Amino acid sequence: MEINYKKIKVIGFDADDTLWVNETYFREAELEIQKLLSVYETPNQIDQELFKVEIRNLPIYGYGIKAFTLSMVEVALELSNYNVPNKTIEAILNIGKNMLEKPVELLDGVEEVLKKLSKNYRLILATKGDLLDQERKLKKSGLTDYFHHIEVLSDKQEANYSKLLNHLDIKPSEFLMIGNSLKSDVLPLVNIKANAIHVPFHTTWAHEEVTEKETNGKTYKTLHSLREVLELFN
Amino acid sequence: MEINYKKIKVIGFDADDTLWVNETYFREAELEIQKLLSVYETPNQIDQELFKVEIRNLPIYGYGIKAFTLSMVEVALELSNYNVPNKTIEAILNIGKNMLEKPVELLDGVEEVLKKLSKNYRLILATKGDLLDQERKLKKSGLTDYFHHIEVLSDKQEANYSKLLNHLDIKPSEFLMIGNSLKSDVLPLVNIKANAIHVPFHTTWAHEEVTEKETNGKTYKTLHSLREVLELFN
Repeated sequence: MEINYKKIKVIGFDADDTLWVNETYFREAELEIQKLLSVYETPNQIDQELFKVEIRNLPIYGYGIKAFTLSMVEVALELSNYNVPNKTIEAILNIGKNMLEKPVELLDGVEEVLKKLSKNYRLILATKGDLLDQERKLKKSGLTDYFHHIEVLSDKQEANYSKLLNHLDIKPSEFLMIGNSLKSDVLPLVNIKANAIHVPFHTTWAHEEVTEKETNGKTYKTLHSLREVLELFN
Repeated sequence: MEINYKKIKVIGFDADDTLWVNETYFREAELEIQKLLSVYETPNQIDQELFKVEIRNLPIYGYGIKAFTLSMVEVALELSNYNVPNKTIEAILNIGKNMLEKPVELLDGVEEVLKKLSKNYRLILATKGDLLDQERKLKKSGLTDYFHHIEVLSDKQEANYSKLLNHLDIKPSEFLMIGNSLKSDVLPLVNIKANAIHVPFHTTWAHEEVTEKETNGKTYKTLHSLREVLELFN
């Protein structure tokens, strides 16, 4: 099914790795903790353990940098067999704080796309990160005025999007989501008969990866760069 | 100025300490960390240091239990002069996790009030905690169906409420906020000419306390229990 652009009323944009760089900073943080804990384990072991702990904590911590920081501390305790120096714990807390204070690096074409679409559509930022963190990034990005508001979803599953459409008082066919994650920004929308455009980022968190089986038979558009959105709305 | 109930379209409820017990759990957590760090400092010193670190971290961490947990770890490192055992750090992480998994204890009259008001008004939950945590509490509380949706505010200052009213497409006079914090749920509303009802909880976090000067000349209603709201809407 092709997207019927005339029906669209609201366009939701994912934020991290769709509008600005994010996953890259998590990858850098992982390299840092690998270095900090290198006396206890191999980089690969540390990586695997961190992923395991993050997924284990997801139901209670949710997403975002604070959750990630708490999981890093937990991994340091476990992998060191409760021998990690206090200064290393402090260094881990600082990794998290530095992530929260990173500058915002916009991806290609973002401002042009938002500028054009905001003239004819209500744009919202739909994110599952921390609201404070996303607001700060939006402010730093200078893109605030293009968005009607920020929607924070505790997760990006079908039920969360259905609730969002209900809250926005629109039908699925009137909503288009644009994002870099097939799992979070595309498939749940397709499954509830809303519209989605996939703009992949070069790095994807393992938890966001999907199998071929999951995308099989699903219709959505894939673009190489957000800039290409401009051609679709001509 | 009296509240003109006929104009009200949307009623916002604060969640923590308005609908259910919350601050009590923070006080209990503070007692636990005082015990854990008692070899390094007096309970009073620990309390003061924790408050200082929380306020220092507020601009980057925001509110909520994850932020509180990260600040507790930081305090343990500092007050122990970087000598706190790993097991104590783990115990601190567990204080946070236990807080996130607490049962929900409703305050007096909550269900009756929501049941009645939801028939004639759009009710929203307006909170500055973590969305995931608030969604979980709402689900556990059994009150989900009374609310149109949850609004997460990164802070509860005038600008945040103005943005919310804009997003809800309503005038200040059409909005009533009900909550336990003068600083967060009452004064900012009064200042933007919206309506507010104050229902104090027996415990208030120091950061939420206001001076007499701030409340001077401000008009809002104070009730002893949420249940009394029922009498106002008769």
